[in-house]
Amino acid sequence: MSDCATHCNKTRNGTHFTAYESGARSDWPDHSLEIPGLGEVHGKHFLKDRVGLTGCEISINSLPPGGGMPFHHTHQQNEEVYIFIQGKGQMQIDGEILDVQEGSIVRINPNGLRTWRNNSHEPLLYIVVQMRENSLKQYGFGDGVVPEKAVSWPD
Amino acid sequence: MSDCATHCNKTRNGTHFTAYESGARSDWPDHSLEIPGLGEVHGKHFLKDRVGLTGCEISINSLPPGGGMPFHHTHQQNEEVYIFIQGKGQMQIDGEILDVQEGSIVRINPNGLRTWRNNSHEPLLYIVVQMRENSLKQYGFGDGVVPEKAVSWPD
Repeated sequence: MSDCATHCNKTRNGTHFTAYESGARSDWPDHSLEIPGLGEVHGKHFLKDRVGLTGCEISINSLPPGGGMPFHHTHQQNEEVYIFIQGKGQMQIDGEILDVQEGSIVRINPNGLRTWRNNSHEPLLYIVVQMRENSLKQYGFGDGVVPEKAVSWPD
Repeated sequence: MSDCATHCNKTRNGTHFTAYESGARSDWPDHSLEIPGLGEVHGKHFLKDRVGLTGCEISINSLPPGGGMPFHHTHQQNEEVYIFIQGKGQMQIDGEILDVQEGSIVRINPNGLRTWRNNSHEPLLYIVVQMRENSLKQYGFGDGVVPEKAVSWPD
């Protein structure tokens, strides 16, 4: 399936935002992309260039029952966090095996050697965020500003 | 409900990772935290300090039917991205209204004035990632390293 044919017209730009409709969770397996050396990979969809992120790369992912990464990987500069939002599976980090499931959050240092698989009978859905290690300076309410402006919505 | 009593013992540390069980999506409304000036807020759970993130803050969030943020906010340094994973609602950014739903991805510049609500009859679940604008230098396969090591799993 051509990724662009189904998704390129689902973007809306404002002065200070970009919004994109990636589709329901049940559609995640239909995403695909070309990876040099691996060919067409299904169930992986990168969001950085789609919405213009400048501080992280994010992918939304679906791995079918029995599926798994065919390689281990580490990173050079970037920390990663895996947010599992549906299903069950396993991660292997530096040879250590972790059972993961809906609600598992796994942060990995750049040099953690990682791979993962879906050893269940249902799709495994997860979000991966990759950002430069130690790049955050202030955060949460410490970075937020709340102007004096009442919230109002149309009826 | 005390956040720590239910979740502090659900963390596992390795040399290069921290894993944390945040609970199933249906448990997200049960998370709560104290916000200075607002009191106890339900359905919001920050992950940075929980798993030791150094490049972003992440929250997992549930907003009940009819719920909404009682204020607008902007940021000083940080870009945000909202990843809606269940339900329907609306965001308001610089006065512009966007319908959002499962699969909507909304990136906002630090100075976008934002608020949001759940105007549906089902819970609205979403993940917010906040990271320093322009902090990412290389990403995806450009930052990854794939060592020559075969993947093997125990039976």
